[in-house]
Amino acid sequence: MGLKAVFLNCTLKYSPDISNTRALIDKVVDLMTPLGVECEVLRVVDYNIKFGVTSNEGAGDLWPLLLEKIKAADIIVIGTPIWFGVRSSVAQLVLERLGGTYAEGDPDTGQFPLYNKVGAVIVTGNEDGAHDAAGTTLFNLSHLGCTIPPNSDCYWVGDAGPGPDYLKAGGERHLYTNKTARYLAHNVAYMAHLLREYPIPTNLKKLKDEAAEVSDS
Amino acid sequence: MGLKAVFLNCTLKYSPDISNTRALIDKVVDLMTPLGVECEVLRVVDYNIKFGVTSNEGAGDLWPLLLEKIKAADIIVIGTPIWFGVRSSVAQLVLERLGGTYAEGDPDTGQFPLYNKVGAVIVTGNEDGAHDAAGTTLFNLSHLGCTIPPNSDCYWVGDAGPGPDYLKAGGERHLYTNKTARYLAHNVAYMAHLLREYPIPTNLKKLKDEAAEVSDS
Amino acid sequence: MGLKAVFLNCTLKYSPDISNTRALIDKVVDLMTPLGVECEVLRVVDYNIKFGVTSNEGAGDLWPLLLEKIKAADIIVIGTPIWFGVRSSVAQLVLERLGGTYAEGDPDTGQFPLYNKVGAVIVTGNEDGAHDAAGTTLFNLSHLGCTIPPNSDCYWVGDAGPGPDYLKAGGERHLYTNKTARYLAHNVAYMAHLLREYPIPTNLKKLKDEAAEVSDS
Amino acid sequence: MGLKAVFLNCTLKYSPDISNTRALIDKVVDLMTPLGVECEVLRVVDYNIKFGVTSNEGAGDLWPLLLEKIKAADIIVIGTPIWFGVRSSVAQLVLERLGGTYAEGDPDTGQFPLYNKVGAVIVTGNEDGAHDAAGTTLFNLSHLGCTIPPNSDCYWVGDAGPGPDYLKAGGERHLYTNKTARYLAHNVAYMAHLLREYPIPTNLKKLKDEAAEVSDS
Repeated sequence: MGLKAVFLNCTLKYSPDISNTRALIDKVVDLMTPLGVECEVLRVVDYNIKFGVTSNEGAGDLWPLLLEKIKAADIIVIGTPIWFGVRSSVAQLVLERLGGTYAEGDPDTGQFPLYNKVGAVIVTGNEDGAHDAAGTTLFNLSHLGCTIPPNSDCYWVGDAGPGPDYLKAGGERHLYTNKTARYLAHNVAYMAHLLREYPIPTNLKKLKDEAAEVSDS
Repeated sequence: MGLKAVFLNCTLKYSPDISNTRALIDKVVDLMTPLGVECEVLRVVDYNIKFGVTSNEGAGDLWPLLLEKIKAADIIVIGTPIWFGVRSSVAQLVLERLGGTYAEGDPDTGQFPLYNKVGAVIVTGNEDGAHDAAGTTLFNLSHLGCTIPPNSDCYWVGDAGPGPDYLKAGGERHLYTNKTARYLAHNVAYMAHLLREYPIPTNLKKLKDEAAEVSDS
Repeated sequence: MGLKAVFLNCTLKYSPDISNTRALIDKVVDLMTPLGVECEVLRVVDYNIKFGVTSNEGAGDLWPLLLEKIKAADIIVIGTPIWFGVRSSVAQLVLERLGGTYAEGDPDTGQFPLYNKVGAVIVTGNEDGAHDAAGTTLFNLSHLGCTIPPNSDCYWVGDAGPGPDYLKAGGERHLYTNKTARYLAHNVAYMAHLLREYPIPTNLKKLKDEAAEVSDS
Repeated sequence: MGLKAVFLNCTLKYSPDISNTRALIDKVVDLMTPLGVECEVLRVVDYNIKFGVTSNEGAGDLWPLLLEKIKAADIIVIGTPIWFGVRSSVAQLVLERLGGTYAEGDPDTGQFPLYNKVGAVIVTGNEDGAHDAAGTTLFNLSHLGCTIPPNSDCYWVGDAGPGPDYLKAGGERHLYTNKTARYLAHNVAYMAHLLREYPIPTNLKKLKDEAAEVSDS
């Protein structure tokens, strides 16, 4: 069975508005598909996702729908614009909701649902903030269980100050972004293959018990 | 041949002063050694490391000595205290110097020297800042070629404001820190074994050429 | 006429759930009120605030209501919990919406609506992340026009890892937090008095024209 | 008596190498001087500054020399390049050493030596990271006692990925940077005048005692 990737587009714009982040996501999808990865892109803001930190925030909350797709995927890619130098509120909302999976550890191994998945991030902004947005997001995904292969981020930003976005600025022909999109696609796909064949066997539950023996609380 | 790990202790204190970061590093060393990993701890500040962004900053610079050990290792662990909410100047210095390895890509694959190594981070502070220090550091290592397995960070911090350090506060008996030290040791060792057997084959050079064909500069 | 402060509580919890951030906000309100500041606390999540980066995102958007109060205030305080080491999605949403005020510069001076106001931040979390949440937020407010006096932040966090929140942990009796709450209240109130009497006279419009003469675009 | 500003250039390059950060600092100096501010620029790396967190780290440490100039100034400007998305190791070193001033509070008011000074930041990088470098630095300065007026940062960065530096890229003619350099110069000078005439009267010592009465430790 082939690999699956879920791309969560965390733009602030509702469909059918043009999303620059989506444009860069599409590039990565086009690169990853030939590597045997089935890709699905979800624009988070089009779903009614409630604020919260559990996996189900009650009536009307559509997060469970997205979470089901995330759990079924081998690769999770967060796509986010930059606002005020950091990732978008929608990206932060997605992470807050993913925090709910900590409570759903495997009964035997204690591994969280995102263990043995691969994490990546795609960032667009008219300027500055990609390192912060990417670094924070990949670190959060690694806490949730994802493995981060090298060069697992791809971004485009323009020079200092407000300016044209990715599409208007011709970012689609920017060498650094196109190069790292390829690094990301290849490394992420390879790591997902590897983890499917050789999943991390760590028993978190057993290790926690061991730790408890030498700890006070 | 067994695996090797290099721990770079980025404390601001010169030997033989007691380093809290070293104390937590030692815990991880004790956990990783039985997993077949030969561990070496280096206190960076004891070496004369010049400021700069190349792999050799000339007469008197001892970075080449450290870099040789780093290149020979399978696992690279940055240990850092927190000052003003972020990683130490010494940790930042180490990253700046590691930036020199970007220029030493493999002639065939373009892979940087840190490719197929595993990255991890250990952080201590009397309060707040571990997420920033850990996230920034792991992201930087992933850019340099390292793979970041899940839970590849271990930290101890006290509550808000100045207060006792790791050792004085009895941090050695803090469950969360002891638990994550074990997660780190096991996941990092497993991933290093995996990457030694199945190294990432991505040809960065070829992908860069492909990208250049669809880019302007 | 007395000074006015607006506190934007960016908790993820809807009323009437208990908000730890609100509990710390209330402390600061109690300290600031005797200094001649009329305080209003708004729980953002209780209003229907749309995602976006303008001051009015159309039908049903209640941001204009909040923005009116913000513009009428002398002091703006963002209260936020920490999730995944950074400020909440609701806090990020508030900043994104405040970004709309850049487009509402004074016709003569070009000063944005938040010029000559004072910014502050209050942060609670069960652990780590206060520096990042506070630093990012104060920097953003300074870009929007606010002045940041010394010690304009107050936070409570517990030690490493998940644990009890501010109220359950007895954070209300934590010296560092109680001390900095007072520093914040006094410095912020003083600076607001000062700026009301001696507002910053900088003509941004004229300076931009001067800059344009020595710039290419 | 006129106002004094100290600019700490935290480039990694030793004199007489060309520093891009210095080039942007010089622009701000040229803008601030006509506003009645006497400006001095110090290239930190040219002095032997030891790692540490006190105001004097013993024999050979030249920090006391710099600190004397800092204490005599009304305005403190940190100039830093970006490396790996954050401020330089030299900038971090400067902040770590400034941390020593916390221990030098006024015997009566408890105010730290940097109280009633104004803080600002200048950042250059060939790409991404200015928000993080500037935000962290201004927040740190505000903790140390500085007031941060609006638009107290000025930066230049190029677009995504490695590329030419400020000088080579023609950053000297970049409108956004030239505009914000003027905002910074005018707002900082005004605030320094204001604080000299109307210094913040807050008695930190008294407030700490008050806090202690309602706290456990």
